[in-house]
Amino acid sequence: MAGGALRCAPYPGTVTFPVVGMVGGGQLARMTHEAGIPLGIRFKLLSDTAQDSAAQVVNDVVVGDYRDLDTLRRFAEGCDVITFDHEHVPTEHLRALEADGVPVRPGPEALVHAQDKGVMRARLTELGIPAPRNRIVSSPEDVAAFAAEGDGFPVVLKTVRGGYDGKGVWVVRGVGDPAAAEPFKAGVPVLAEEKVDFARELAANVVRSPHGQAVAYPVVESIQVDGVCDTVIAPAPGLAEDAAVRAQETALRIANELGVVGHLAVEMFETEDGRLLVNELAMRPHNSGHWTQDGAVTSQFVNHLRAVLDLPLGDPRCRAPWTVMANVLGGDYPDMYAPYLHCMARDPQLKIHMYGKDVKPGRKVGHVNVYGDDLADLRERAAHAAGYLRGTVVE
Amino acid sequence: MAGGALRCAPYPGTVTFPVVGMVGGGQLARMTHEAGIPLGIRFKLLSDTAQDSAAQVVNDVVVGDYRDLDTLRRFAEGCDVITFDHEHVPTEHLRALEADGVPVRPGPEALVHAQDKGVMRARLTELGIPAPRNRIVSSPEDVAAFAAEGDGFPVVLKTVRGGYDGKGVWVVRGVGDPAAAEPFKAGVPVLAEEKVDFARELAANVVRSPHGQAVAYPVVESIQVDGVCDTVIAPAPGLAEDAAVRAQETALRIANELGVVGHLAVEMFETEDGRLLVNELAMRPHNSGHWTQDGAVTSQFVNHLRAVLDLPLGDPRCRAPWTVMANVLGGDYPDMYAPYLHCMARDPQLKIHMYGKDVKPGRKVGHVNVYGDDLADLRERAAHAAGYLRGTVVE
Repeated sequence: MAGGALRCAPYPGTVTFPVVGMVGGGQLARMTHEAGIPLGIRFKLLSDTAQDSAAQVVNDVVVGDYRDLDTLRRFAEGCDVITFDHEHVPTEHLRALEADGVPVRPGPEALVHAQDKGVMRARLTELGIPAPRNRIVSSPEDVAAFAAEGDGFPVVLKTVRGGYDGKGVWVVRGVGDPAAAEPFKAGVPVLAEEKVDFARELAANVVRSPHGQAVAYPVVESIQVDGVCDTVIAPAPGLAEDAAVRAQETALRIANELGVVGHLAVEMFETEDGRLLVNELAMRPHNSGHWTQDGAVTSQFVNHLRAVLDLPLGDPRCRAPWTVMANVLGGDYPDMYAPYLHCMARDPQLKIHMYGKDVKPGRKVGHVNVYGDDLADLRERAAHAAGYLRGTVVE
Repeated sequence: MAGGALRCAPYPGTVTFPVVGMVGGGQLARMTHEAGIPLGIRFKLLSDTAQDSAAQVVNDVVVGDYRDLDTLRRFAEGCDVITFDHEHVPTEHLRALEADGVPVRPGPEALVHAQDKGVMRARLTELGIPAPRNRIVSSPEDVAAFAAEGDGFPVVLKTVRGGYDGKGVWVVRGVGDPAAAEPFKAGVPVLAEEKVDFARELAANVVRSPHGQAVAYPVVESIQVDGVCDTVIAPAPGLAEDAAVRAQETALRIANELGVVGHLAVEMFETEDGRLLVNELAMRPHNSGHWTQDGAVTSQFVNHLRAVLDLPLGDPRCRAPWTVMANVLGGDYPDMYAPYLHCMARDPQLKIHMYGKDVKPGRKVGHVNVYGDDLADLRERAAHAAGYLRGTVVE
């Protein structure tokens, strides 16, 4: 990826601020737009529908299919740089845009590692970065052989592309477990991984710009429920200083080696014996960084924009001793506005971030942040607010 | 003004969040939209042009003339509540909207005090709230008589409607000063006020909701240059605790007596002998509250929205010992983006807020916030960044 100055797009009058085009209309684009308003930049969106989370709040929206190269090319014409709300744009389309001269950030040669878990695993192995034992498999027999060569079952199977939030992931508990056959039905490559008996999950978030500047956010603990992120605590409680530095250095090294531009989330398992194994990569603002909106000097969304615009990055440090983020999932009732009264009255320091999405059970529709000195108090307040908005807490 | 629950507007799918309509497309609307994105509400804008500051970043923009009642009525049809970026909507139009059943917040009976300085002065006198000596005058002879009855010249003349940032204001230095004739040329009512020999200017910002909840922000010092706000320091340095409380109580009392809903800025003169005299009122987010975006737990924009939606208000307290805001004015060169590189690299904690406005010399086109422990350092950094963006500081 080439660095250097961006073209400046035409703008009414004399101001010539760049146009950032974001592909994907989800909540990450919504919050990136929010973060971009103070910068004075123009934000353009390629969204599946006019009702998508970000499309509701952005002025300049193109409704179109990101899988269609012509659509991408027309969208890119009005943009100084292209970036992403998700990893699903076909890698070959991104290469085509780059060949057209469009700055694509992160570029396809970096992004493919967040798109394809097979490519990611191969590259991390090459770099000697600790990760769960893994191999591409093509049949239940391969899975059995993979298990036998290691510590046996359970084994985790993942489609190499397209999975998220526990989708596209299967746990195989033994020979003959029907789950071992499922992933192969779609005819896509499948990755087998040892099921790590981890103590907890961490995330090391970093941001890197084309000119090579990088910042590392404090390492956070991420608590999953049913395969979906439930709570993030910043910084990770009780994490030894040397382990935190090791996690940050690993993330910075991955960002540098892969040529990432923008925000990189490195999800890790921390084992009981203190090893850090890389689980997943995401090259965009990430759920494990939502706490930064209210808890860091510079949010992940602002720094992602500054990176893709090749501007100097903002301070990633904490503004409070602790920040807790809790995801708001859809529950059984659709009205998420009515509970505002109770939540806001109960906790005048609570930060609610809603995505404007229709409620479906289990769907991420928002999150809350709280920050302060008393971690137990913050965890209770975040969990209460998230539960109250979802409808699982009623008092 | 009636309180109570708002109607909920139709919304795609099952989410029924309210629609806030804001009249006026300036930077206050732009930053209110930004603040509303996390709330998940819908934000609708009535803007003079499609290029106005807020119109660039809001999805749902109606271009139209706020002085036209039919335009206002059509705009109000899609809104659950109407609020304002400026004070210029004719009071009788707001009364008509209210008669139509549209929640107008602040309502016309409150807002008229921010629209008409004559009405405001009369009411504050009635309430016994300290203010500069004042009287409505209709000729240079009236001005001379007003001066003779007090401490003599200089006397300040103001048109009762339409002035801002030093516009619509004249200082008359003696009998025969040609400035005494200027304000009467337009044939509008003119207010004469003693020219207060103040020690400094303060602002007490409060937010009040229909159900009567109110919060008071820390009192700030506002430093004007050539009649335009240059720097705001939160909290006001060296302000005695009892004076701060007196200023907050005055602002809360005005909000309550006038039935204000939303943000109320009360600009005051602090005299050498410790008196606080009310200078101006604004019933909307205000330049003296921009520091709250980065320096308070809840920003003025968020609390203004929460108030007009009759939601419980957020914590108004400081997040840092000091926050300094400096306005960025237009200078001689139009490119305000190029200096980003230097400003961001020099100060990774700097918060830039640009308005997307064309640069005209002296026009407010953005502001910067910095916060921390060392006031002298913060003032230097804020002044440097604002000056560098303007082009008056080049190193």
